[in-house]
Amino acid sequence: MNDASTTPRDVRMRGFARRTTVADALVRLDRELYQLPAETATIIDAADRVLASHVQSQIDVPGFDRAMMDGFALQASNTLGASPYNRLVLTIVGQVLPGSTFRGPVVDGQAVRIMTGAPMPRGADAVLPVENVQVEGDRLFALDEVSPGKHVGRRGEDIRSEATVLEAGRRLRPQDLGVLSSIGIAEVPVVRQPRVRIAVTGNELLPPGTRPEGVRIADANSPMLASLVVRDGGRPINPGIVPDDPAALRTALHTDVDVILVSGGSSVGQEDLVPILLAEYGELLVHGLAMRPSSPAGFGRIGPRLVFLLPGNPVSCFCAYDFFAGRAIRALSGRSKDWPYRQTKLPLRRKLVSTIGRVDYARVQIVDKYVEPLAISGASILSSTTLADGFVVVEQDSEGSAPGELVDVYLYD
Amino acid sequence: MNDASTTPRDVRMRGFARRTTVADALVRLDRELYQLPAETATIIDAADRVLASHVQSQIDVPGFDRAMMDGFALQASNTLGASPYNRLVLTIVGQVLPGSTFRGPVVDGQAVRIMTGAPMPRGADAVLPVENVQVEGDRLFALDEVSPGKHVGRRGEDIRSEATVLEAGRRLRPQDLGVLSSIGIAEVPVVRQPRVRIAVTGNELLPPGTRPEGVRIADANSPMLASLVVRDGGRPINPGIVPDDPAALRTALHTDVDVILVSGGSSVGQEDLVPILLAEYGELLVHGLAMRPSSPAGFGRIGPRLVFLLPGNPVSCFCAYDFFAGRAIRALSGRSKDWPYRQTKLPLRRKLVSTIGRVDYARVQIVDKYVEPLAISGASILSSTTLADGFVVVEQDSEGSAPGELVDVYLYD
Repeated sequence: MNDASTTPRDVRMRGFARRTTVADALVRLDRELYQLPAETATIIDAADRVLASHVQSQIDVPGFDRAMMDGFALQASNTLGASPYNRLVLTIVGQVLPGSTFRGPVVDGQAVRIMTGAPMPRGADAVLPVENVQVEGDRLFALDEVSPGKHVGRRGEDIRSEATVLEAGRRLRPQDLGVLSSIGIAEVPVVRQPRVRIAVTGNELLPPGTRPEGVRIADANSPMLASLVVRDGGRPINPGIVPDDPAALRTALHTDVDVILVSGGSSVGQEDLVPILLAEYGELLVHGLAMRPSSPAGFGRIGPRLVFLLPGNPVSCFCAYDFFAGRAIRALSGRSKDWPYRQTKLPLRRKLVSTIGRVDYARVQIVDKYVEPLAISGASILSSTTLADGFVVVEQDSEGSAPGELVDVYLYD
Repeated sequence: MNDASTTPRDVRMRGFARRTTVADALVRLDRELYQLPAETATIIDAADRVLASHVQSQIDVPGFDRAMMDGFALQASNTLGASPYNRLVLTIVGQVLPGSTFRGPVVDGQAVRIMTGAPMPRGADAVLPVENVQVEGDRLFALDEVSPGKHVGRRGEDIRSEATVLEAGRRLRPQDLGVLSSIGIAEVPVVRQPRVRIAVTGNELLPPGTRPEGVRIADANSPMLASLVVRDGGRPINPGIVPDDPAALRTALHTDVDVILVSGGSSVGQEDLVPILLAEYGELLVHGLAMRPSSPAGFGRIGPRLVFLLPGNPVSCFCAYDFFAGRAIRALSGRSKDWPYRQTKLPLRRKLVSTIGRVDYARVQIVDKYVEPLAISGASILSSTTLADGFVVVEQDSEGSAPGELVDVYLYD
């Protein structure tokens, strides 16, 4: 550590000299973002992961002409004029099941019992569905006509060999895994998931879920952050609460991961070592934001690791995560940087007040299709995020919105 | 098995005598649905699970009056009239950090350095933020006024003891886990996840991701169904492809799980044993549906186990899963029965044709904010579900929709 006038030590106990706007901070953050390299995953494990390269099929699907209905493979011309009042008779010469092959060709006047998915016998050009026949022994009575090609799936009809089946950047859906499997692909290259070290600091903290005692409180941020990281495609690593001392923080800041989330110690108070250590070991890119809550938040990097300073207060921590850290984790994992929340536009029930010069993250409820800002006395109220149905972002140049005005709501669900 | 005229054996190779409407099938299905009992999960494992009981707080949060800003705890009256031009002086008598307690009371003219989250010393009634002071040794110059109670979080302000914090049926969000942790709750009762046996049948099938050979094809349904089951809150169990024989199917149908998904062998063709076995071992509730694709689908039960008959064709399998099996899995796991897809309303670019008397599941793309039905020759085209952005359901009493008409689109993403 040094005392040069540019270090954060300078602002200790003096407050932030200047707060970065959210817009500027996002521009600064985006310059640091990149996509992690690929790794291989089985198609079972690839669910919901982001494909790292285009996938081309090496084969035709189907690989052979096949029946699309249960019924009888035959020559369509043999059914010409067939109806319940003009039953045409053919001879059943065998059957073919999926995975097997009918030996001979089907000639004029013959029919082969066929199941959906079974390969078409040579000579047959249509399937007469089971609903349109009567069977007596080896005699088949056609009750309807079929046209050539009817109920036959052609080789390559679904996917042609060398066709691009899925494009890089796609988040793999259940049906995508089905397609990959059907073209004989058992493993795919997917974007590696960012390893995210959660470092919750605070000597006042008891482990998550511990009953608070006296002036000690339970760590609310670890389980919340772990769940957010998973939501955004990262893999949380959380070995436990980090004591507020330089050695422990130094170790945490040097974990071999992609992203470090430090909760607590991010302000400019006497014990807020983290920004100082980050500036010393790496680069403190943004610290102090024109937003509420989360104004003491910041971020920087140590070598290749992105480090986010999240306030210890749970609501501020949640908000700072959502504005900055979540965005980075999504980008690294190949996902869209945008919030994963559903959006809706609804009118305000009451005035939503804000202050020009800062972004406000206002928790709201939706009551009878109106947006009701939650009346909350302080940023600290974590229960406001559980009572809320979502939030509204009030931009920095806005004083808020009047009753009846339409606002964009991001829904927590 | 018996040959009584009411068994499905009767309809073998004759087609479905009567198809159940989707609406009737859903009514019938909903009568079978229930919520699984609770189990205990740690708050880390409870992410995204459904809470089985209300959670009440046993404590006040915060448990003590605390500072909401970094600054100085003092008597607000001592700052009356303070400004940068009228600096008022106080004496710094100590400091208090989160997790510690200031020994003595704060009296008139005194200030205690305090960090956000630290307990308020006795006698102090406000925090003067660090931004509004100058410090020289143990002398504090107040540069602004604060009113009593300012920047102080009151005991119980966030959550009062005995308040209901989260209600039963809620799917736990990241911030909910934070709240649970902060009230000292380490484990919660959550609805048990349904165990879902995936039984993909078909002698023509090679294991998922195997390169198809000759007339044998790779199982596309296992990875697709496993991913769908996870999406809907279930735990997939898939020991591998089930041979098309009564003994193997019998074993699969008697697995000790909550839900069984059988893919393939669900039609009325010669090899379609599953409906027959289901009727023999339990109850075949619905078989044959007025919908496209997926008309051979059905469901029933064997004792407490819900059994879904999904066609082997991947698109039909996907569609039948989404209409019936997914709904059941979501209900069992305590979630909303509704589709998890985002919905949007957009105009059609081209005519969407359907047949009165059946529900159509039409895959569509969204191009320039218009809905473009995919031109697909058959139900079998699994790639249609990967090319599509979503789907439109054409109701049974509709012939389809005209260009420009607004339709509800369910989005796959």
